[in-house]
Amino acid sequence: MDETGTGTDTHTGPHTPDTPRATLGVGMVGYAFMGAAHSQGWRTAGRVFDLPLTPVMAAVCGRDPAAVRAAARRHGWAEAETDWRALIARDDVQLVDICTPGDSHAEIAIAALEAGKHVLCEKPLANTVAEAEAMVEAADRARERGQLAMVGFNYRRVPALAFARRLVASGRLGTLRHVRVTYLQDWITDPEFPLVWRLRKERAGSGALGDLGAHIVDLAQHLTGEHLAGVSALTETFVKERPLPGAAHGLSAAADGAGRGPVTVDDAALFTGRLASGALASFEVTRVAAGRKNALRIELNGALGSLSFDLERLNELCFHDHTEEAAVSGFRRILVTEPEHPYLEAWWPPGHGLGYEHTFVHQARDLVHAIAAGTGPRPSFADGLQVQRVLAAVEESARHDSRYTPVEPAPVLPALA
Amino acid sequence: MDETGTGTDTHTGPHTPDTPRATLGVGMVGYAFMGAAHSQGWRTAGRVFDLPLTPVMAAVCGRDPAAVRAAARRHGWAEAETDWRALIARDDVQLVDICTPGDSHAEIAIAALEAGKHVLCEKPLANTVAEAEAMVEAADRARERGQLAMVGFNYRRVPALAFARRLVASGRLGTLRHVRVTYLQDWITDPEFPLVWRLRKERAGSGALGDLGAHIVDLAQHLTGEHLAGVSALTETFVKERPLPGAAHGLSAAADGAGRGPVTVDDAALFTGRLASGALASFEVTRVAAGRKNALRIELNGALGSLSFDLERLNELCFHDHTEEAAVSGFRRILVTEPEHPYLEAWWPPGHGLGYEHTFVHQARDLVHAIAAGTGPRPSFADGLQVQRVLAAVEESARHDSRYTPVEPAPVLPALA
Amino acid sequence: MDETGTGTDTHTGPHTPDTPRATLGVGMVGYAFMGAAHSQGWRTAGRVFDLPLTPVMAAVCGRDPAAVRAAARRHGWAEAETDWRALIARDDVQLVDICTPGDSHAEIAIAALEAGKHVLCEKPLANTVAEAEAMVEAADRARERGQLAMVGFNYRRVPALAFARRLVASGRLGTLRHVRVTYLQDWITDPEFPLVWRLRKERAGSGALGDLGAHIVDLAQHLTGEHLAGVSALTETFVKERPLPGAAHGLSAAADGAGRGPVTVDDAALFTGRLASGALASFEVTRVAAGRKNALRIELNGALGSLSFDLERLNELCFHDHTEEAAVSGFRRILVTEPEHPYLEAWWPPGHGLGYEHTFVHQARDLVHAIAAGTGPRPSFADGLQVQRVLAAVEESARHDSRYTPVEPAPVLPALA
Amino acid sequence: MDETGTGTDTHTGPHTPDTPRATLGVGMVGYAFMGAAHSQGWRTAGRVFDLPLTPVMAAVCGRDPAAVRAAARRHGWAEAETDWRALIARDDVQLVDICTPGDSHAEIAIAALEAGKHVLCEKPLANTVAEAEAMVEAADRARERGQLAMVGFNYRRVPALAFARRLVASGRLGTLRHVRVTYLQDWITDPEFPLVWRLRKERAGSGALGDLGAHIVDLAQHLTGEHLAGVSALTETFVKERPLPGAAHGLSAAADGAGRGPVTVDDAALFTGRLASGALASFEVTRVAAGRKNALRIELNGALGSLSFDLERLNELCFHDHTEEAAVSGFRRILVTEPEHPYLEAWWPPGHGLGYEHTFVHQARDLVHAIAAGTGPRPSFADGLQVQRVLAAVEESARHDSRYTPVEPAPVLPALA
Repeated sequence: MDETGTGTDTHTGPHTPDTPRATLGVGMVGYAFMGAAHSQGWRTAGRVFDLPLTPVMAAVCGRDPAAVRAAARRHGWAEAETDWRALIARDDVQLVDICTPGDSHAEIAIAALEAGKHVLCEKPLANTVAEAEAMVEAADRARERGQLAMVGFNYRRVPALAFARRLVASGRLGTLRHVRVTYLQDWITDPEFPLVWRLRKERAGSGALGDLGAHIVDLAQHLTGEHLAGVSALTETFVKERPLPGAAHGLSAAADGAGRGPVTVDDAALFTGRLASGALASFEVTRVAAGRKNALRIELNGALGSLSFDLERLNELCFHDHTEEAAVSGFRRILVTEPEHPYLEAWWPPGHGLGYEHTFVHQARDLVHAIAAGTGPRPSFADGLQVQRVLAAVEESARHDSRYTPVEPAPVLPALA
Repeated sequence: MDETGTGTDTHTGPHTPDTPRATLGVGMVGYAFMGAAHSQGWRTAGRVFDLPLTPVMAAVCGRDPAAVRAAARRHGWAEAETDWRALIARDDVQLVDICTPGDSHAEIAIAALEAGKHVLCEKPLANTVAEAEAMVEAADRARERGQLAMVGFNYRRVPALAFARRLVASGRLGTLRHVRVTYLQDWITDPEFPLVWRLRKERAGSGALGDLGAHIVDLAQHLTGEHLAGVSALTETFVKERPLPGAAHGLSAAADGAGRGPVTVDDAALFTGRLASGALASFEVTRVAAGRKNALRIELNGALGSLSFDLERLNELCFHDHTEEAAVSGFRRILVTEPEHPYLEAWWPPGHGLGYEHTFVHQARDLVHAIAAGTGPRPSFADGLQVQRVLAAVEESARHDSRYTPVEPAPVLPALA
Repeated sequence: MDETGTGTDTHTGPHTPDTPRATLGVGMVGYAFMGAAHSQGWRTAGRVFDLPLTPVMAAVCGRDPAAVRAAARRHGWAEAETDWRALIARDDVQLVDICTPGDSHAEIAIAALEAGKHVLCEKPLANTVAEAEAMVEAADRARERGQLAMVGFNYRRVPALAFARRLVASGRLGTLRHVRVTYLQDWITDPEFPLVWRLRKERAGSGALGDLGAHIVDLAQHLTGEHLAGVSALTETFVKERPLPGAAHGLSAAADGAGRGPVTVDDAALFTGRLASGALASFEVTRVAAGRKNALRIELNGALGSLSFDLERLNELCFHDHTEEAAVSGFRRILVTEPEHPYLEAWWPPGHGLGYEHTFVHQARDLVHAIAAGTGPRPSFADGLQVQRVLAAVEESARHDSRYTPVEPAPVLPALA
Repeated sequence: MDETGTGTDTHTGPHTPDTPRATLGVGMVGYAFMGAAHSQGWRTAGRVFDLPLTPVMAAVCGRDPAAVRAAARRHGWAEAETDWRALIARDDVQLVDICTPGDSHAEIAIAALEAGKHVLCEKPLANTVAEAEAMVEAADRARERGQLAMVGFNYRRVPALAFARRLVASGRLGTLRHVRVTYLQDWITDPEFPLVWRLRKERAGSGALGDLGAHIVDLAQHLTGEHLAGVSALTETFVKERPLPGAAHGLSAAADGAGRGPVTVDDAALFTGRLASGALASFEVTRVAAGRKNALRIELNGALGSLSFDLERLNELCFHDHTEEAAVSGFRRILVTEPEHPYLEAWWPPGHGLGYEHTFVHQARDLVHAIAAGTGPRPSFADGLQVQRVLAAVEESARHDSRYTPVEPAPVLPALA
């Protein structure tokens, strides 16, 4: 199967057939950071990979008419819409790509699925477990009608991590003992950084936990092929009050402390847990680790070998083969840029690295393949729900003296492909 | 000035004007590895950066009609041509982008300039100094008519190297003492790797020296803002005979050794030299450094500080500030992904790295800015000629017992921007 | 004050006084791994550092007469004893250095202190909190008589960590947010590794937690200058049964599984916690992290900067100064080999690194200075007791569903020197 | 054979024989930096390794009576001498260890050999080829009488480099293509660093070339098992005048520039060359590479694999095995601390690294084994002479326009053990 970059497609291949491919009309909701990244993905996927359907960037949707028109021009969407329901209703849209904040995911995704569209939804799947459950139900119903749904955990498509998954699945690590994942950033280290919407619970749902924790919980489960059975957690908000955004920019500072407001999400979270197999797992997310910009670091230790990865060096995977003679063994730094590596056959020669945005190109590629084949793409909405359940258990444990809190079991195992 | 990524442009900026920009029609000759990379550049530059002219991918040219049509479809060129003279003659082409092998650069570039087109020409500028001189003359004449010419030393546009240039130019390194550059690859390490055209002098002009050496000579001169005054060199072809390509694939192996042919270019070259200021420079290029995929490594040592860089980790620049207290000094690993870094304001948040191909996006961006402003883009054809002169001196020194061989001085200093 | 390597002493200094120094007779109990390391410390300290008292290696003690005589010869002790009470009673012994397993520490240390001797006791201070408390009481009584007691957390004397402590104490990191420490080894990764005494609770007290956890709890508290207020923990024994040592060597393998025995200590422990200031702390110890040999890794994140360290590269400390301009900031790799660094003035020129055993030389040096000055050396027995209390809280939390478990507060803060 | 750390000896072994070993009386000339390091070696070797002869530190020699007495006390030598001829004449000295500057090596070494003593002589062997030739002749004559001579290229005894030699000798790298060695320091980067004796030709003979170049030429030849056939070189003195040492310290600064003197040795040297087999070699030595403290870096590229090493991380060796499947290959970081590694069985558990000074312990160990066995130790005086010839060729090439200059062939190949 062709899903996780394992197919044969090449960038500079001698023959692309003369007969045009069928198209897949894409409509995107939201056009900020994620919208820009997804646009790069849709614009590029068919230029690099041999796709069974040709993505067509039909329309982008946003509330501000002038801004969404400018975004359409900038990012290459044919038309602009200001009402997501109108976007969903378009005949030239077969896939709805949801890049809005989490509080609108459920409504848009369910409506789109019910309207007979495929859906790609940014992570986290939703802001609550209940919403996520409703989305999974909608996806299950849609699946019977032939519509597919995928959640955008794009880091699964970093070639080094897709290759890590292969090594684990092939048994090169043996029985897993430890999973160790951190996601460290530092953009709110300064206590004077303003109270942006991401720091308010009513808008963002959660802080570092929902934003960064969703990624690493998904990766831990995906890479190991196991679910987390339970967790124990601490969360913390170090800076309790921050300047209101206007105040920070000197526009509206008021007397009597009116220029500050309370931070209502976590700055950081620590949690530990057990995988279904009994392996131990350790997690840390933070936005105040001075000097760490995007340090999503993973280490897996198994009885036969270990892997380590750092998103700040995303073209590299370190692998230790414990079955080798001790005198010549050690962590080897694999440059994941060989044609044998996932997705790489279509790109550049060895050593010519990829970047962050390529994960969105790979996501688009894999989703198009899944739609053409009619197979359910992963991560599915059920995968997204499982992540939400873990995050909910983390919050519950943190509220209850870090007590070990079981996670409701998921019906489906993480992808083994 | 807006050339090397120093302008203000942002990816997600609030306002893109409603009035459409003027366009710049691009015609590309050649569509293999470099053609694919340039296509990515042209397709993306205007989506990420605010450009004063909108590039239009008018036509691509190649000799095989079916193949060039497929390439046009794949890479997003509106039309296909099979004769480069026809491409040059098109009214909708204002810029000719030359991605063919070096032996055709001079003819196409000179014709395009004389036809009133701007020209972007892949490196190396030409296969001989004489050709390069003719190209510079053509560029000088064209300049008077308003046509601009640029050579594609894309690594100048790696953000880390553009930032390195800024640090040097700002005096942070002080008087330079050492420049140390290697470009190590390993793709012909296996003696059974076949005798592809890049290993035959009549086609490729030179081996590792012309291919890899051109890059590092340009970078050494660009980063230091100085020219090489002279060189002393050794070159070597370790594997004198290789299987003919057909033979290697079992298609045409003949008896009596007819299945092998002589390698007529270098596998590796070592050279040392002096910069105009007296700093020492050391260079090494090779295609047989097992395990090194794209190890373009640079170190600069000055009286006040040092820089080091490795293309295999292209989002990082290491900087040592020698004016700091010894106890807390050391090489710092700068993740060159901050909005303050060249080109980065338009891309992703800190820590979300770029890849190899982005150099071509930046090259397209800078060239469009230069054309709009009417200022000469760098690296100019004169810069390319100067690199050719250094490579010619390397070959001459290698032929004469490594004797120190002066390089003819260039009239223009490397860019200081 | 002269304790943590901050004094002025130099290896090759021009003048060593002609008048001989007073001596300090040392008697050591135990001569295995730790005994060998301590012997290197005592033999070398006075050769490298200018000490106020000259250590004399008076006698070593062990139960096997022939073996202890051989050890005395090998390691340079003047005489051998077979009864530790006899060693303590010797007139030529003023300092008793205890290198036995933890279950004998309390008895020997208390007896030695009561006999009027100074004591250096290997870590962990004891196998139980009750024993440790008795030792602290004995140390307090002895202190009034002028005898000093120290516990051997030697990693405080790695120059990079002593320097890290200085940077924290000087405020370079600002308010601390995170402490992240792991100690990863892999020597029992193979399930067929035999059931040595360290894997049986009756002998070792604890597994990775007591052995490795004691080090990292002490370092976390020492480096931050704060105590842990509470912890939440998971522990695990992955391999429940192992071959009996004889069986493993083929000497006594019996039928019917008689060749295996139960592992009664932990293989690994994960714990999280809060420092007194509210900073979050994360800990992991394991003996089954394939490929990690001695990976004691520490990271501290503060509002003004961060530090990171890896014992596998013990001459390096990485420091990020968050007050610097973003474009040139990053983790700098400080080679902690400058004369300005702790202990280094007495050693080799910059860049000529030290090794593991030098921590014992520094420990000996600092203890001799403290004894000469009559000041209490750190880490004191009270420091050791505090570590035991943390480990006890970890075990209690692990037994109670990872519930957050407060640690009894210590009367004395970690050293700020 | 037992020479390069390959024997079986263990630190904590159960039995050391009761019968005392025969002794080897050592007399050392010079007691500065190298003398301190050698003293550590002699003091420690027999404590860690099982030696066939027990070294006895009989006497140290220096011209200043008070200073040499203090040095004897400090470093553990039984007696002090002020005349090296008296030292050589002592009956209790069988081995003379020469740690003086290079200009006195020949006289002392030849006299010691003629007096029937074994000799260990610091590198470089001598200041001139003629002196070195006389020393080789003396060593050859002495050898017939049973006296042995060794030159102190201690870096051969870094365990990682001793292991690298094993990997090369065992064929793991295949046919060598490239040797790349730098030795970068920065201690005279500041132009105001004073004119110490090491910067005056009449005292030091040469600058970075003789001091650092001797090490890397020896290592390149030793690791490859081949001699350099010829070289091409550039040398440079960047700072032509420096403050006189007194002036720099404010003691004697005079008007009219009288406070400065000319630097008469090189600051840096670049040279390239060919090994006997045709492999290319690249060398760089400098004392002005800001931020590099002791960066002796080596890379070897062969048809089957590559090795890289950095003395600033001396416990690590990086190895790429080119015969492995490309997708999982990469440079592995071997922690050279396993009992299977050279010298390590006698030291600490895996991951507990060694330091710079341990090379002198290993040197002492290997020399004692060679003396006990009566076999010629390596590096021999002939090895030292060969290095001098290479350095002389470098200087000659630098004087003659970098012309490729053959090196007189040596009669004996570098050690293959």
